[in-house]
Amino acid sequence: MEFQGNKLHLTVFGQSHAPAVGMVLDGLPSGFAVDMEKLQSFLARRAPGQSRFTTARKEADIPEFVSGLTEGVACGAPVCALIRNGDKRSADYARFFSVPRPSHADYPARVRYGDAYDFRGGGPFSGRLTAPLCVAGGIALQWLEARGVFLGAHIASIAGIRDAAFDPVDVSAADFEAVRSRDFPVLDPAAGQRMQEAIDLARQEQDSVGGVVECAAVGLPAGVGGPLFEGLESALSAALFAIPAVKGVAFGSGFEAAALRGSRHNDPYILKGGQVRTATNHAGGLLGGMTTGMPLLLTAAFKPTPSIGQAQKSVNLDTLEEEELVITGRHDPCVVPRAVPVVEAVAALVLMDRLL
Amino acid sequence: MEFQGNKLHLTVFGQSHAPAVGMVLDGLPSGFAVDMEKLQSFLARRAPGQSRFTTARKEADIPEFVSGLTEGVACGAPVCALIRNGDKRSADYARFFSVPRPSHADYPARVRYGDAYDFRGGGPFSGRLTAPLCVAGGIALQWLEARGVFLGAHIASIAGIRDAAFDPVDVSAADFEAVRSRDFPVLDPAAGQRMQEAIDLARQEQDSVGGVVECAAVGLPAGVGGPLFEGLESALSAALFAIPAVKGVAFGSGFEAAALRGSRHNDPYILKGGQVRTATNHAGGLLGGMTTGMPLLLTAAFKPTPSIGQAQKSVNLDTLEEEELVITGRHDPCVVPRAVPVVEAVAALVLMDRLL
Amino acid sequence: MEFQGNKLHLTVFGQSHAPAVGMVLDGLPSGFAVDMEKLQSFLARRAPGQSRFTTARKEADIPEFVSGLTEGVACGAPVCALIRNGDKRSADYARFFSVPRPSHADYPARVRYGDAYDFRGGGPFSGRLTAPLCVAGGIALQWLEARGVFLGAHIASIAGIRDAAFDPVDVSAADFEAVRSRDFPVLDPAAGQRMQEAIDLARQEQDSVGGVVECAAVGLPAGVGGPLFEGLESALSAALFAIPAVKGVAFGSGFEAAALRGSRHNDPYILKGGQVRTATNHAGGLLGGMTTGMPLLLTAAFKPTPSIGQAQKSVNLDTLEEEELVITGRHDPCVVPRAVPVVEAVAALVLMDRLL
Amino acid sequence: MEFQGNKLHLTVFGQSHAPAVGMVLDGLPSGFAVDMEKLQSFLARRAPGQSRFTTARKEADIPEFVSGLTEGVACGAPVCALIRNGDKRSADYARFFSVPRPSHADYPARVRYGDAYDFRGGGPFSGRLTAPLCVAGGIALQWLEARGVFLGAHIASIAGIRDAAFDPVDVSAADFEAVRSRDFPVLDPAAGQRMQEAIDLARQEQDSVGGVVECAAVGLPAGVGGPLFEGLESALSAALFAIPAVKGVAFGSGFEAAALRGSRHNDPYILKGGQVRTATNHAGGLLGGMTTGMPLLLTAAFKPTPSIGQAQKSVNLDTLEEEELVITGRHDPCVVPRAVPVVEAVAALVLMDRLL
Repeated sequence: MEFQGNKLHLTVFGQSHAPAVGMVLDGLPSGFAVDMEKLQSFLARRAPGQSRFTTARKEADIPEFVSGLTEGVACGAPVCALIRNGDKRSADYARFFSVPRPSHADYPARVRYGDAYDFRGGGPFSGRLTAPLCVAGGIALQWLEARGVFLGAHIASIAGIRDAAFDPVDVSAADFEAVRSRDFPVLDPAAGQRMQEAIDLARQEQDSVGGVVECAAVGLPAGVGGPLFEGLESALSAALFAIPAVKGVAFGSGFEAAALRGSRHNDPYILKGGQVRTATNHAGGLLGGMTTGMPLLLTAAFKPTPSIGQAQKSVNLDTLEEEELVITGRHDPCVVPRAVPVVEAVAALVLMDRLL
Repeated sequence: MEFQGNKLHLTVFGQSHAPAVGMVLDGLPSGFAVDMEKLQSFLARRAPGQSRFTTARKEADIPEFVSGLTEGVACGAPVCALIRNGDKRSADYARFFSVPRPSHADYPARVRYGDAYDFRGGGPFSGRLTAPLCVAGGIALQWLEARGVFLGAHIASIAGIRDAAFDPVDVSAADFEAVRSRDFPVLDPAAGQRMQEAIDLARQEQDSVGGVVECAAVGLPAGVGGPLFEGLESALSAALFAIPAVKGVAFGSGFEAAALRGSRHNDPYILKGGQVRTATNHAGGLLGGMTTGMPLLLTAAFKPTPSIGQAQKSVNLDTLEEEELVITGRHDPCVVPRAVPVVEAVAALVLMDRLL
Repeated sequence: MEFQGNKLHLTVFGQSHAPAVGMVLDGLPSGFAVDMEKLQSFLARRAPGQSRFTTARKEADIPEFVSGLTEGVACGAPVCALIRNGDKRSADYARFFSVPRPSHADYPARVRYGDAYDFRGGGPFSGRLTAPLCVAGGIALQWLEARGVFLGAHIASIAGIRDAAFDPVDVSAADFEAVRSRDFPVLDPAAGQRMQEAIDLARQEQDSVGGVVECAAVGLPAGVGGPLFEGLESALSAALFAIPAVKGVAFGSGFEAAALRGSRHNDPYILKGGQVRTATNHAGGLLGGMTTGMPLLLTAAFKPTPSIGQAQKSVNLDTLEEEELVITGRHDPCVVPRAVPVVEAVAALVLMDRLL
Repeated sequence: MEFQGNKLHLTVFGQSHAPAVGMVLDGLPSGFAVDMEKLQSFLARRAPGQSRFTTARKEADIPEFVSGLTEGVACGAPVCALIRNGDKRSADYARFFSVPRPSHADYPARVRYGDAYDFRGGGPFSGRLTAPLCVAGGIALQWLEARGVFLGAHIASIAGIRDAAFDPVDVSAADFEAVRSRDFPVLDPAAGQRMQEAIDLARQEQDSVGGVVECAAVGLPAGVGGPLFEGLESALSAALFAIPAVKGVAFGSGFEAAALRGSRHNDPYILKGGQVRTATNHAGGLLGGMTTGMPLLLTAAFKPTPSIGQAQKSVNLDTLEEEELVITGRHDPCVVPRAVPVVEAVAALVLMDRLL
């Protein structure tokens, strides 16, 4: 459960119903001051229970820093933060050890870990583990901002309902702030309204919906990354697929690029204010695994929440008989709104690592 | 330019117009016998010049193994293979150092590497580097097959023209063989015919097209992978994005999953021949970063070849003036057919690493 | 502050006067049951304050496990343990930021980390950090024992006074137990008595002494390790030099081997009970970076404690003037007795990693 | 067979009697010009056959660079160099597969690699593999020198006969040049004469001798390295123990420090020309795993060459009977003179990695 960057190493630990989840971030430069209030605001965007669109589980998500920071300032030693797990209802999960929930990690996790697997609350596969990811990523975001690199994300679509897209050539930090100022992180509030209605409808029907998050970064210099396995796409996608429920990652025009002609897809170089820029940005700011200096653009697709209230078919692994399963307990009908800061967090970690 | 698996380490070296490209594969178990004829057949599927759909550059692509194999049998020491670069026309590239080709690595590479950058033929960013990838991956494929794991790919689409898809529940090694037996690697020859016409048309119009490759693996046990950054999707996507021109990677239903309801997307568990299986396979054989034992399914989107014959806008980096650029030389109007074995190669490396 | 094994990853965090020190151990196999009482006994061997030979600082050193263990049994997720820091006297250290203590990390640490460096109690360079090392290593020792691999260490010398040596051919787990049963970890109690007198004398003279720890492991199969950088000596020495105050590491005859003739140093192969063994063991159980199946033998040299009560010369880094420095506070006149379990701990981590 | 630095990755490949040995060095900065003549001189110091003190095997050891250099200048892509193996007498080794040579890697290598092990000439465990190490390290040395860091080594002792030592406080690049200018790399030619006599005597008696190499580096800034596993000693020792035949590594006073009092061992800080220095340098330029800015000093102990002409006892692994073994063929009675540049090479790689 480690992110091994070139200079930044992140170790995440914890299970959903263990005493705590947490992280150790090694590589934060000595002297960097973490704005704790800003970090807490960032974590609040991911925390559950803040709106009607998320699970009813209440978690304060206030990290305790036990090393690496002296009054908020990095001393150069690894930064360890804990978030205690409270409000657990482990009994809710007792049955899933025998009868795995469809499209959850239950079944392969039991195969891998055997009887000692801590399946309570999804164990180490729980979305709960994105809390420490956001502690690390929230610090990385602050570090990037101090260097003029700004990063933001929004819901690109939920249940097929699309938000406006970032301007691939001119997206700016102001756009990121606009999204953050809204309760529901979209560019177009009208689209956001329709998405929320779709989520509500799914909830009423004991169902769930998925969606896509778009993320952009501006202020990156050109030439960051490298050939083959050193490419920035490799590092970013590896980090993004670490987020539970992500099923697809694309850069720039992504899968749509595959249907375009080269003459349409290529981004011509132009001069703008004496700088080398491209007139379009189908590349999403990445060529040859390296940044071009244009906005970096990526999308991550999230599957619908596998926990739904409807009865589902499963198999009892102990009796080897098919059984019907009804999942009770508290679950998001849509993880996408809370996933927006998580996408920002992991992208920020990768970019910080490469800029250190 | 290294793939750092848990047990398998691959180092790729070379530039397009250096004396050689090659690879060092560390971790191949002692005693494993490489079928050299089979490996050469695999490499031939990637090699250029074998059909009218690829660049006219002739390359024999016959690797010389200088260490690690004794009469084809691994001795346990790292395996090094060289492929000499011949038939180079470095003069073709002289201008691109000053005037970067749109949507190629030229510009960011010059920023990163400076004046010493070996831009001839695209340097280390050239598709030429996929030849040593295929040497390593071709060996990995043989190793997997010896353990009952079969892996295959086909062109899922070119220029928007779709092939049939692998059966997500019942795809088999026989399907992979069927694709390999064809000159043009598709499931549906009629679709393949239309794709080839689209490529021909693009060539005639001095243009290029992109496409999508679908890859599947069968015979994998359940429980391979792990939480967060240990997930198989992270490792596979990192390897796939290392392939030049890949802009998107998805597993199972991928981006389409984002528009589905949970009730539709979830894969119910069933018993089949006493085995735990899923009735559908939207997950693409992966849950919680781990294999489910169902076929592993992934897609990779390739952008259209950036080298096109049409005049394009660029900027002279030395004079800082905009210039028109016409690319001559030999180029594939579509890299997708040759990319099929490359996708197999890198996927095989990752899977072998996790099964070792 | 990470140990990156092939399968075992250890992240250590904390500073001497931070809220806590701790560790995250990733790779402990699911289902392994930690004997907490035994672990606590192991930690007690390292803990200060248990005898007159160590610093007066009182530390309970009772780890709190916040993840990865369910009632002491590993669930497969990373194991995180915290040890809270109490009884800190940070004011003792205020001066050393300006006037570095000779032969401590103070000066280079300030150069590296700058003004934000947490110099209190030696920060992350404190011997305090060996407490979490021992938590991880103590678990590794238990894992090894469950596989028939036993590991033990003793004081080979202090202040030049030598203990008996392990029998290089016939050392056994019983020898390790004998050492552990003693308050002062030596093979020969009479030698131990003389060492303690030397320590007492040094303390009375406001001075300190160093020493050598010898460590052995039995029950290892042959063939563990590999060529060049894969050698077991590389991994073991890297882990041993991570222990503060270690200045030398040797295997088998070590530096003495350099003065021997080959005819004397070579270990002839013999058959013993049908097994391939060597008649002597100058190799210390390691050839070509691999285990031979004979006892693994290593020594680690510890410098004398740099904190001494005598006045010393130093330089004020702020005024750039030479100053006399007198170190008050609590310090071990000899770290070697407490270092014995630390050597066992890091050696156990490396061996467990290679046997997993 | 990889050195994984923070920024520099070295992959070594080859076996003694494979077509070639070689290396891939990733991380050499673009634009760095390798002085090929100087590199060849460096390699000549390690090459066999240049004097009467080394094996009669003739090897030109001229590397062929197949990637990463354009007319000697690094282009930023990995640098691959091959050294072809010639003058092999594989038949000399046929018996050792069944009857392992005492104190060679033969026995554990056969256990590890099984029947497919390439035992000819010692396979990947041969001293032959230090040739590509020296290619990489010779480049690193040039890179360091261009940054004002100089590194040199000499024979500290052979067969117990001691050379003078480097001045721990004032050793300089001139001392390194003086050693290099001599056929036999010592500081004191008279001591060197006695060593050569000892080697000759051992040869006449069909025996061998070991020795110690001392290495120093000057020009290093303070503060390079870090706590616990980040310490420079860990990285240096791991690299040094990768050299075949090394049995001990120490820094500064090393094992002798263990017998000193703190008052004698501590290095007082002084001002010298406005710089913070230490009056003595028992620390060998390293405190807390970090450089102090004083000369870095280390020693590596080499065991006597295990190949001796005298009859030795061994065991036939196929018949499981004890047998007498007589080793014929060509062997160094002492590897220490040729090991001097190898020690420089691996130390240079580690230091370059940390300074990049």
